Amino acid sequence: MSLENRVDVLIIGAGPAGIMCANALAMAGVDVRIIDKRPVKVAAGQADGISPRTIEVLQSYGLAERLIREGNQMHMCAFYNPGRDGGIECTGHVPDITASTSRYPFQITLHQGAIEAIFVDSMRAHGVEVERPKQPVDLEISEDPDELSSLSSYPVKVTLERLDPVGEESKTEIVHAKFVLGADGAHSWVRKALGISMEGEQTDYIWGVVDMVPETNFPDIRNRTAIHSENGSCMIIPREGDLVRLYTQLSDTDIIDPLTGRVDKSKMSPQKLISVSRRILHPFELGESKEIEWWTIYIIGQRVASSYSVKNRVFIAGDACHTHSPKAGQGMNAAMNDTHNLAWKFAYVLRGWSSPSLLKTYEHERRKYAQDLIDFDKKFATLFSGKPRTAENEDGVSHDEFLRAFQTFGGFTSGIGVHYSPSAIVDPKHQQCAENLIIGQRMVPQIFVRAADCRPIEIQDLLPADIRFKLLFFVGHLTETRVTELNALAEELRNPSSFFVKYSPDGNVSTVFDVITIAAGDKGDTNYLLVPAFFRPHWTRVLLDDTDMTGRQGGRAYARFGIDPEQITLVVVRPDGYVGAIIPSTAVAELDNYFGSFLTPS
Amino acid sequence: MSLENRVDVLIIGAGPAGIMCANALAMAGVDVRIIDKRPVKVAAGQADGISPRTIEVLQSYGLAERLIREGNQMHMCAFYNPGRDGGIECTGHVPDITASTSRYPFQITLHQGAIEAIFVDSMRAHGVEVERPKQPVDLEISEDPDELSSLSSYPVKVTLERLDPVGEESKTEIVHAKFVLGADGAHSWVRKALGISMEGEQTDYIWGVVDMVPETNFPDIRNRTAIHSENGSCMIIPREGDLVRLYTQLSDTDIIDPLTGRVDKSKMSPQKLISVSRRILHPFELGESKEIEWWTIYIIGQRVASSYSVKNRVFIAGDACHTHSPKAGQGMNAAMNDTHNLAWKFAYVLRGWSSPSLLKTYEHERRKYAQDLIDFDKKFATLFSGKPRTAENEDGVSHDEFLRAFQTFGGFTSGIGVHYSPSAIVDPKHQQCAENLIIGQRMVPQIFVRAADCRPIEIQDLLPADIRFKLLFFVGHLTETRVTELNALAEELRNPSSFFVKYSPDGNVSTVFDVITIAAGDKGDTNYLLVPAFFRPHWTRVLLDDTDMTGRQGGRAYARFGIDPEQITLVVVRPDGYVGAIIPSTAVAELDNYFGSFLTPS
Repeated sequence: MSLENRVDVLIIGAGPAGIMCANALAMAGVDVRIIDKRPVKVAAGQADGISPRTIEVLQSYGLAERLIREGNQMHMCAFYNPGRDGGIECTGHVPDITASTSRYPFQITLHQGAIEAIFVDSMRAHGVEVERPKQPVDLEISEDPDELSSLSSYPVKVTLERLDPVGEESKTEIVHAKFVLGADGAHSWVRKALGISMEGEQTDYIWGVVDMVPETNFPDIRNRTAIHSENGSCMIIPREGDLVRLYTQLSDTDIIDPLTGRVDKSKMSPQKLISVSRRILHPFELGESKEIEWWTIYIIGQRVASSYSVKNRVFIAGDACHTHSPKAGQGMNAAMNDTHNLAWKFAYVLRGWSSPSLLKTYEHERRKYAQDLIDFDKKFATLFSGKPRTAENEDGVSHDEFLRAFQTFGGFTSGIGVHYSPSAIVDPKHQQCAENLIIGQRMVPQIFVRAADCRPIEIQDLLPADIRFKLLFFVGHLTETRVTELNALAEELRNPSSFFVKYSPDGNVSTVFDVITIAAGDKGDTNYLLVPAFFRPHWTRVLLDDTDMTGRQGGRAYARFGIDPEQITLVVVRPDGYVGAIIPSTAVAELDNYFGSFLTPS
Repeated sequence: MSLENRVDVLIIGAGPAGIMCANALAMAGVDVRIIDKRPVKVAAGQADGISPRTIEVLQSYGLAERLIREGNQMHMCAFYNPGRDGGIECTGHVPDITASTSRYPFQITLHQGAIEAIFVDSMRAHGVEVERPKQPVDLEISEDPDELSSLSSYPVKVTLERLDPVGEESKTEIVHAKFVLGADGAHSWVRKALGISMEGEQTDYIWGVVDMVPETNFPDIRNRTAIHSENGSCMIIPREGDLVRLYTQLSDTDIIDPLTGRVDKSKMSPQKLISVSRRILHPFELGESKEIEWWTIYIIGQRVASSYSVKNRVFIAGDACHTHSPKAGQGMNAAMNDTHNLAWKFAYVLRGWSSPSLLKTYEHERRKYAQDLIDFDKKFATLFSGKPRTAENEDGVSHDEFLRAFQTFGGFTSGIGVHYSPSAIVDPKHQQCAENLIIGQRMVPQIFVRAADCRPIEIQDLLPADIRFKLLFFVGHLTETRVTELNALAEELRNPSSFFVKYSPDGNVSTVFDVITIAAGDKGDTNYLLVPAFFRPHWTRVLLDDTDMTGRQGGRAYARFGIDPEQITLVVVRPDGYVGAIIPSTAVAELDNYFGSFLTPS
């Protein structure tokens, strides 16, 4: 007889998408379980690049410090092209990250297992462990409309199989879940069980990848380097410690079985991959590696799932819904950002703060992103896999062409450019109140000083992923008139019909909303105690747009964002750190509609 | 019958001086024990200020991150003086830290127990626990010259008493130690056992201190604030969380028993201290505190021990050798820096790398510092405790006078200005090779980029307290000529008569010496592989004096330090982070004498 259990959220798959979701829900106190069919976590290789935006996201969960400590940083990008005498030569160096607002102006490389361990340890501290090895063998969603519409019911029934039952333990278990997340990779069992198709096609480009400790006189071996040679293309990705990853383009004869026309991995070995790279790197030398940590073969395919959810009860995320080439380094980043987008929405619906319609915004926001990513990836992969331009081959890819693409798509490789389009939770109506603070993009990093003690504070550190909406009141100068206006605004917001009271569960306004006040003025003569108590729930919540005591950081944010210090402007930041709305204080009542469109009155 | 045991270093007292030493020795793999008579660690109050230099020192042991996370930061300092209508008014704000080279431009406040816990946890990870409650009851140093001169003998015999013997355990233990450190506070038992006297006197200033959560409309309550009022003086020190420490000057009538002439603590209470502060703060309000964490009474005394050691076998450190007023916040900092100075010297002597004479430099360096500190403290305490200048009292202390003293002595309050005078380990002969890198001061923070991957690197992070001497080779531009010169220099240093080989135990040159190379040049076109292997033991060891890829940090160090990029200049940094010598490559043979004066040939 099978065990039967209930859980609010069941996550299938403990890769990047699954653990990001499980940790977020564990931190939010949501009843969650996560299973994985692998008996142990990934030990080496796999995905390895963390983009600047993903570092910001990890920081919002308090996890970036460890990632930065353990990982390698890529700051510089080098380009090599065919030189005069048959070999390659350097054609330029550029910053690896071109998005100027990145808080972390670098990418981090670290093997997937080490990244996963950061989440697994955090989840454990919140009482959630990955259950492994376990896999789903059956999934049914109730057809009963009452069950499907009630949040007290558990309409998804998943049968789990334990792959190594301990002692007398039952081999199978039936889990009744309110929501299920399929984060089970490119060959997703959940996606197939739901009958969701993948759209897109395989390409002809075949790549080998090997993680090694190189012996070489190639001077950019510790930089991200794109090499176009007449002997093929290669991408170098330096890794933690002394490891380096080489992506090498393979020709059909290297790897395709002529009889079947399929990839035959047995025709390849890390030594053969290295010898292909050696030809590409000429005239630089590449010796035998003292250490091969991992290797594999890729065929680039760019595909996206036709749908991200079924009946608003079962969702898929990460590789289960989109696949792309590895060289843009987006797989793990896209996966983590999928569920970072989804997790707070699960929490809101499960707590009864929001209607289930909020979950619809997940597919709206993330599927469009995946499609854009794939469009980018196609162009990038074509350029990257194409022949270089030389005197003999004038149709080839020129350095300038490649560099232009590299920089144009900086928003993708950094993750900084993600821009969610209008929806219930993205209202761009008053964009003109802060022209350079883009509604639908993540709140940009900016250093302020704390008014009470002049400590420099990065605004992103006041926007933790604690499932609260952050209300940033840019109040301008604390003149007598302004203080009067603020008192009137506080009065308006304290009114029971205001969103601030109406959508605060149990009358506790700090459950869903977190108030931060940002004044304009000089640190030497601004008295933060003039800020009315409503806008100053604690002394740490009042910031000043000024430099710190060294004069080296902070200040000029009103000008940078395009906010008029003669007005009061409210910036609403979503729990995932994206700007949801910007409202002039004169129109603050419009927020009753904004929040009313997805929050439930308490 | 007593137990008898042997240990290389026995530390008595687990306050700031003791734990800094124990942790440093534990990390260096030295056989060490540490005892304390208190049954548990300090829970609240006591010393609380960590200066910028001490933060740098903690960082060199890998401990600053936690300190910064847990502590409060003081960035701004405010001054108040008598105003027009009887109350106080603000006369100015200045940076709390005026030393421009501070890596951390703030002080940290955190209760002593939390600071100690950082060290205790680190020691534990290296296998050393504080043994408590235990105290010494007898200490004898052998009179036998052979024993005293041999490093295989244990000439110090200490009898320890366990204050709560467990079960059948012996109550006393005899410990035979090679070295003993008395870090047992202002009333040091060790100092008394050694018959060392304290020089200096008590003063008449009596101060009360209380840690509280204030209810107040005083706008600088979260800044370090010095208040001179006609009702007395007060110093505000904001603390972790919402705590604030108030130091308040008391009059004799507040606290002295008229019969005995001695301080009578029972005449005082935290409520009374707060009411004294309330008078000083007028016209600002100070309500009753919701929470009193700790309080005490001080009489300021400035005294220094006549000697810091006996027979070069027993040493004292911290409050055991110097006491001063609490307001300059130097007690804990001086204590930690005493044993940071001493610990690596213990390690060198115990490993047989250095002659015991090295230990003499401890008293030479730290006693002079303590005397300077006391001179400063006397002036500061007098100014601080003195009456403010007003129309009626023209002899009082003016704001300008106080501010000038505050800024002049910034080197003390920050710890940055500590300057060790010439000795076996401080050789200022070639100061002109780097005029702005002061020999005898700590190596200043400076950001370089790592040549291989353009990652910005703070040079102090390459100077961990790992008991190695760091050899910083400023090699200038990597021209062909320079590379030839470097090859010749490498040849010279590899010669068996060179210090580099002669003082490297077991022929392993990286045991005592750590080579770091700093080139001049542009990150886009400097090939670090041109640096000869001798100067490039690992790819991470070559730095470049250039800005990072964002252009926002790094660069201009040659100019800043006054180092000529047309020469090769070697900067020797001691294991404790202080610049020991600077040598032009043409005079590198002089280092044979420098190191020969205290290191032992292997």
